[in-house]
Amino acid sequence: MKRWNTWGSENQALDAKLGPAAMTMLEQLLGKASALPDSTLEGVMAKVPASRLPQHPLIDTGAEIRVRHARGQSLPDHLAVRSGEFGVFPDGVALPENTEEVRQLLDFARDNDITVIPYGGGTSVVGHINPAEGDRPVLTIAMTRMNALLHLDKESQIATFGAGAAGPQLEAQLKEHGYTLGHFPQSWEFATIGGWIASRSSGQQSLRYGRIEQLFAGGRMEALNGTLDIPAIPASSAGPDVREMALGSEGRLGILTEVKVRVTPVAEKEIFHVVFLPSWEAGVNAVRTMAQSRVQLSMLRLSNAVETESMLRMADNQEEVALLEEYLGSKDVGEGKTMLTVGITGSENQCVPALTLAMEICEEFGGVDTGTHLGEIWAHGRFKGPYLREPLWQAGYAVDTMETAINWCDVNASMEKIETAIGSALNDEGESIHVYTHLSHVYGQGCSLYSTYLFRCADNYEETHKRWQKLKSAGAEAIVECKGTISHQHGVGTDHKQYLPAEKGELGMAAIQSLCDLFDPKGLMNPGKLL
Amino acid sequence: MKRWNTWGSENQALDAKLGPAAMTMLEQLLGKASALPDSTLEGVMAKVPASRLPQHPLIDTGAEIRVRHARGQSLPDHLAVRSGEFGVFPDGVALPENTEEVRQLLDFARDNDITVIPYGGGTSVVGHINPAEGDRPVLTIAMTRMNALLHLDKESQIATFGAGAAGPQLEAQLKEHGYTLGHFPQSWEFATIGGWIASRSSGQQSLRYGRIEQLFAGGRMEALNGTLDIPAIPASSAGPDVREMALGSEGRLGILTEVKVRVTPVAEKEIFHVVFLPSWEAGVNAVRTMAQSRVQLSMLRLSNAVETESMLRMADNQEEVALLEEYLGSKDVGEGKTMLTVGITGSENQCVPALTLAMEICEEFGGVDTGTHLGEIWAHGRFKGPYLREPLWQAGYAVDTMETAINWCDVNASMEKIETAIGSALNDEGESIHVYTHLSHVYGQGCSLYSTYLFRCADNYEETHKRWQKLKSAGAEAIVECKGTISHQHGVGTDHKQYLPAEKGELGMAAIQSLCDLFDPKGLMNPGKLL
Repeated sequence: MKRWNTWGSENQALDAKLGPAAMTMLEQLLGKASALPDSTLEGVMAKVPASRLPQHPLIDTGAEIRVRHARGQSLPDHLAVRSGEFGVFPDGVALPENTEEVRQLLDFARDNDITVIPYGGGTSVVGHINPAEGDRPVLTIAMTRMNALLHLDKESQIATFGAGAAGPQLEAQLKEHGYTLGHFPQSWEFATIGGWIASRSSGQQSLRYGRIEQLFAGGRMEALNGTLDIPAIPASSAGPDVREMALGSEGRLGILTEVKVRVTPVAEKEIFHVVFLPSWEAGVNAVRTMAQSRVQLSMLRLSNAVETESMLRMADNQEEVALLEEYLGSKDVGEGKTMLTVGITGSENQCVPALTLAMEICEEFGGVDTGTHLGEIWAHGRFKGPYLREPLWQAGYAVDTMETAINWCDVNASMEKIETAIGSALNDEGESIHVYTHLSHVYGQGCSLYSTYLFRCADNYEETHKRWQKLKSAGAEAIVECKGTISHQHGVGTDHKQYLPAEKGELGMAAIQSLCDLFDPKGLMNPGKLL
Repeated sequence: MKRWNTWGSENQALDAKLGPAAMTMLEQLLGKASALPDSTLEGVMAKVPASRLPQHPLIDTGAEIRVRHARGQSLPDHLAVRSGEFGVFPDGVALPENTEEVRQLLDFARDNDITVIPYGGGTSVVGHINPAEGDRPVLTIAMTRMNALLHLDKESQIATFGAGAAGPQLEAQLKEHGYTLGHFPQSWEFATIGGWIASRSSGQQSLRYGRIEQLFAGGRMEALNGTLDIPAIPASSAGPDVREMALGSEGRLGILTEVKVRVTPVAEKEIFHVVFLPSWEAGVNAVRTMAQSRVQLSMLRLSNAVETESMLRMADNQEEVALLEEYLGSKDVGEGKTMLTVGITGSENQCVPALTLAMEICEEFGGVDTGTHLGEIWAHGRFKGPYLREPLWQAGYAVDTMETAINWCDVNASMEKIETAIGSALNDEGESIHVYTHLSHVYGQGCSLYSTYLFRCADNYEETHKRWQKLKSAGAEAIVECKGTISHQHGVGTDHKQYLPAEKGELGMAAIQSLCDLFDPKGLMNPGKLL
């Protein structure tokens, strides 16, 4: 089971730690800090009000399950959970076992004027699954139990899953047959396939496997106004793609119950090389050249100089880091260096020329290949990022991220602008921000920019939340000014909602609204999210 | 200028011919035939009624321009044009020079209750641009003059074009800068970028460049109810993709005026190898293996045994064909053989391993590589298919095509079923059909199937049209039964409309209708098409 108040499973120890070098760095950058007081599960459970839901055999109105399904993983969610000030709880949680039960629950909701929140893994970082205040009772439908591989068509490489399958469940079932979906967002350990589709997710190796838009072939969505069966066709010119309406619908149209996804045999070979480049510009040029030359890679991830420096400082083995830096220095890769992780996946026959081409391009831009050692460390820790919030929190620091996608011609200026906006957002309080960025998910046209920012918690939760609000607004406004998307991989939820019209335009917003009105005429599905 | 009554430009001689071997083959298969009587342009012009449109400086109500914009390139269109029985003509044609003029025309249409047909290259084969009967006057807006490259962002590889740019105009302007769009449907010589987007087109080398969905980055659509500005973002998780609503909208939502497309530097190298395989099954297995192994190719096109045989019989040089067949026979590739064209495009460094991998896979399935000679012939004639309708017509035969996309697991059975349905559709009249199929546009999940069928014209136009109706219905119903899409690359228009609900479902159809209602509340945009 997922822990109730932090990232991770209850079966596993929370062993993410900040080493002394990292602590020193943070204290130097942000000042000394101390942790805010924590709530307890029992304390929070005591605050859960009586349920407003009529009785239904599939709905559990117990306090604990309602606490455990009340919040996602955004920083405001974290502050709510740790302070115990949850605000609104769902009035009940249902865990349907099959499509018929989902149908029953939706009919029940429609007939009783109940709002419905579809819940996958509860990993949203933008408020997708949080109940909103209102007079209508709130039913959270958690898809957890619908996690089976229902069918595997090896010839067409299509797997049918219950939409509640989380990353490890999904991959384990495919692996038994020698297949993989290859969708590995950082939330992979808990996030579900249905949630990925509803939020238009992207995985770390999207360069090989595609975004969820490319992986989602079709499936079934139960809506208040009927059932949408999306046929799994390789491609079609028969009118606008209904599949694309489900993608990014964030629970506003209905609940995906079964999904068909495009899978691949597990690759013969997979390696990650780490290359250091002399500057951000050199790194961006190398990455852009590889992407636009269509070198057959599975991942390109470039940390900017501050992220590179932070990662090296936070590494366990500082002696190794010193040796590495000495070696890089001898190759003219010193201060301002950027770290590039290059994923190569495929058959032996494909990996060999891909690696050669990639390394030739890196070299052209002054890159120094350090081989696969650091890449193995990256791969080993590829889902560990979210665990770092806990030791930071215990040290009195908060961490959050913002991300966008930008055309290549605007990447450098946008990175500067977003970092500057976030970095100076608490100037009025005299608080420093530690902000750094990586680029990943590369396309011919551009890439995503993903900024992480750390700041010191204020003396209390309310002020800490206000700090976050300033940081979030500053970052989001900078993204809008740069003409980036308000989200490349996290979705809209509540936290990005006000920035969506800048991207979609008046008619685009009205178009999405008209779909919501059709699928859900009473406005019961996940109200307040997306639009 | 495009010829008024057949495929081709008025500047170029109609030199497509059927050799004696082809004529013999057709007479044997279909029986002797004779041509139906032709109408003349003057004769048709004399039939054009007075325009019902109010005067407008941008609208031409002359008879000739109305004849030239009344019909597309479907077989019913061909029969209408050659017989002179056009039915409805547009009441006028406008050729706007810029977005402002399009806006003016749409406002004029809205204020005067005029239906609007957006017209690209007039190459639709499913009735997209044909005026429907009705009381409202019909204005065809031809985008011909808006064909310029407006901007090229080389860093982000985004080109902005007027939506009326036809294939050769578009590629010539890009080539000056060393770039290509790489979108080469058979209609390329006349079809436009706006039309490709509105009909969700796919080009012969979609394996490298992607379908138009992947190439279309954003742009501007003028609608009766406003303007839709679609930002060109590399990828986004911010809600349903508005870009996808324009794709396949078939003029029902509005008119694309400027489009941004993802372009690529012209590849260092491009070759087409032709491989013969001992059977259809062997060919399908080879193609599927190459697609699913992600071999970096630009095209895979497999003709079934009858198409292979037909192409060999229709070749100019029958002595060469005999030598080829002798050679193939010595390698156990004889009767029932299938011809596979393999496109390899990229840098020298990419083409070498791709060719090796592809040929290894072909060999595994008994394929014999004949090198690039036949591939060069294919590439030289890649847009020549549509020209064959004319010599066939003059010999008394009609030709049409049907296409779908199917998952790999259903490809063989579907090909059989579709060919059988078409091939037996005129059994009641004792007429034989010559039908053959190729597979192309390959995906991990499946591929398109493209069937060509030839039949003998009846004694008159009406009966010939009835024959076509039987053939079209038989093919389309077979596709629906096989759970293929009703079109992989031609769109819906009027001719596929009745088959769309089987694919989209009730809620899916209602979703598309709700978008139409929003963008065009009075139902003036291209009525009768798509839905």
